[in-house]
Amino acid sequence: MKTYKELFAIIEKAISTAHYGSNPKELYEPITYMMDLGGKRIRPALTLMGCNVFNNDISNAIPAALAIEVFHNFTLVHDDIMDNAPLRRGKETVYKKWNMPIAILSGDLMMIKAIDFLCETNYTNIKELITIFNTTAREVCEGQQIDMNFELKPDVSHEEYIEMIALKTAVLLGASLKIGALIGGANQIDAQNLYDFGKNIGIAFQIQDDLLDSFGEGDKTGKKVGGDIVANKKTLLLIELMQCVHKDDKLLLNQLLNETNELEKVTGILNLYKKYQIDTFAQGKKEIYLQKAFNHLNAVLVEDARKQILLQTANDLMNRIN
Amino acid sequence: MKTYKELFAIIEKAISTAHYGSNPKELYEPITYMMDLGGKRIRPALTLMGCNVFNNDISNAIPAALAIEVFHNFTLVHDDIMDNAPLRRGKETVYKKWNMPIAILSGDLMMIKAIDFLCETNYTNIKELITIFNTTAREVCEGQQIDMNFELKPDVSHEEYIEMIALKTAVLLGASLKIGALIGGANQIDAQNLYDFGKNIGIAFQIQDDLLDSFGEGDKTGKKVGGDIVANKKTLLLIELMQCVHKDDKLLLNQLLNETNELEKVTGILNLYKKYQIDTFAQGKKEIYLQKAFNHLNAVLVEDARKQILLQTANDLMNRIN
Repeated sequence: MKTYKELFAIIEKAISTAHYGSNPKELYEPITYMMDLGGKRIRPALTLMGCNVFNNDISNAIPAALAIEVFHNFTLVHDDIMDNAPLRRGKETVYKKWNMPIAILSGDLMMIKAIDFLCETNYTNIKELITIFNTTAREVCEGQQIDMNFELKPDVSHEEYIEMIALKTAVLLGASLKIGALIGGANQIDAQNLYDFGKNIGIAFQIQDDLLDSFGEGDKTGKKVGGDIVANKKTLLLIELMQCVHKDDKLLLNQLLNETNELEKVTGILNLYKKYQIDTFAQGKKEIYLQKAFNHLNAVLVEDARKQILLQTANDLMNRIN
Repeated sequence: MKTYKELFAIIEKAISTAHYGSNPKELYEPITYMMDLGGKRIRPALTLMGCNVFNNDISNAIPAALAIEVFHNFTLVHDDIMDNAPLRRGKETVYKKWNMPIAILSGDLMMIKAIDFLCETNYTNIKELITIFNTTAREVCEGQQIDMNFELKPDVSHEEYIEMIALKTAVLLGASLKIGALIGGANQIDAQNLYDFGKNIGIAFQIQDDLLDSFGEGDKTGKKVGGDIVANKKTLLLIELMQCVHKDDKLLLNQLLNETNELEKVTGILNLYKKYQIDTFAQGKKEIYLQKAFNHLNAVLVEDARKQILLQTANDLMNRIN
């Protein structure tokens, strides 16, 4: 079994030696730039892990892992235009460094290249892999649109929110694992269990992200101001608070949402979160999805030692403190 | 053999009954809107014709034809953002009717759906079709970028221009035919000859488009002002004129390019076109590509009657007067 470090090195090598194209350079330089920005490479690592659970030879899964990472970066390039984001991993976004037309077109090309890389996989039923990949790609687009819709939607339920984060981020973790598992020789049931493990870990991770923004280091040290709170971002916490706040706190909540003093706003909203035990609610939700994830991992019919790296990766993801 | 009218009806039915998705509606309504805008459906018709040359049963080529048309419309949705275009076929562009993020995302989804439709084709080697499709998709993106680069490039040769129009528009006509031909059972040589027929017809058609803008109806009636001339668009005509204009006409040409009176500008540039026989040059180029196209069609080893519709379609395209 390969370690995360070994898998990471394999992915970095695949990315640096991949041929995306060269002419015109305005179209291809942003792709290399984006792929070289780095990151944890969690999605392609999951593809290789998914394969490694069932097969000691993971070489067949490398093109698929590359496809997943190129696709993920395509979504980032286009999302950065939509969000008018100036920075990505501390560097200028493609949209800002070049321009909007180049970001649209080089993003389009990355989507096309992702399918190309997927098709390089040596697998008997390539249609099956494309179907999983494309279904996920559609869902990611849907999640992004639903997220944009939420900004204007006054009443979002926590069920709707979880559906959104599942589509926008969690299904890609599931698909990364499933595609790798199938390439590694998994049967449909095991592959689907790995998909559900990845998807549920993704949801739990996103809920934790929401929790950390309000109850992370800042909760203990008072140094960190909750960025989500300041931005009135519809996180699971705020959505739940808006739903369960009593009549006599509604006015206060509305005042806080319009408060311009950041410290007062954050302190006030945090007090309401605590009063209504929103952190307990969100922790509970997170635990539910974590438990679901581990149940699916347990159901995969291979010896525990082969699943160890997935358990470790999930724990590492969930134990990060910022 | 099916007529164009029959093929058109098959395509319209496939478009209207295709399932693109429904939720969230902000993402899927633009797709239906765009696909319902109409048009000649020349590309999917070529796919069905390409199949019909080799096979009386064209049903297998319908999903591929749909894939081609969805892909083509995806490029239009994204191009309209880049060009800041308000209208498409007399109606608001997706970008204007909804907004830029929705146009980016629904375009992305159309690209994904195009691959889905292509994969629905009943064909033994689906990877082969995807490779042709994706190569073409990449080339179309490259052509669009090169076209945008030309706006800022002072010296464009006519060889570079023809390479650009080949990539931006002609290769898709070739690929539409080739994919259809392969589905219909063509061997590689015949399929490639149809590709080259389509590609060269596409180049000839684009050169004719340039010619018509300056020497179409307006040449006879004086009513029509050349839109390309007014916009200083780097057409084959202007590129050639800039290359072969004598020293003593260079100043005049520069003055005309900066002329604000449209009638004087068009008349002046047209006079230079005639003086330097730019129309003859362009006609000659057009004939070369037409001849290449017909040579490739002749080389396809099926009886002439089966190729008749392609000859007819090419002639109809080349004989349109505006």
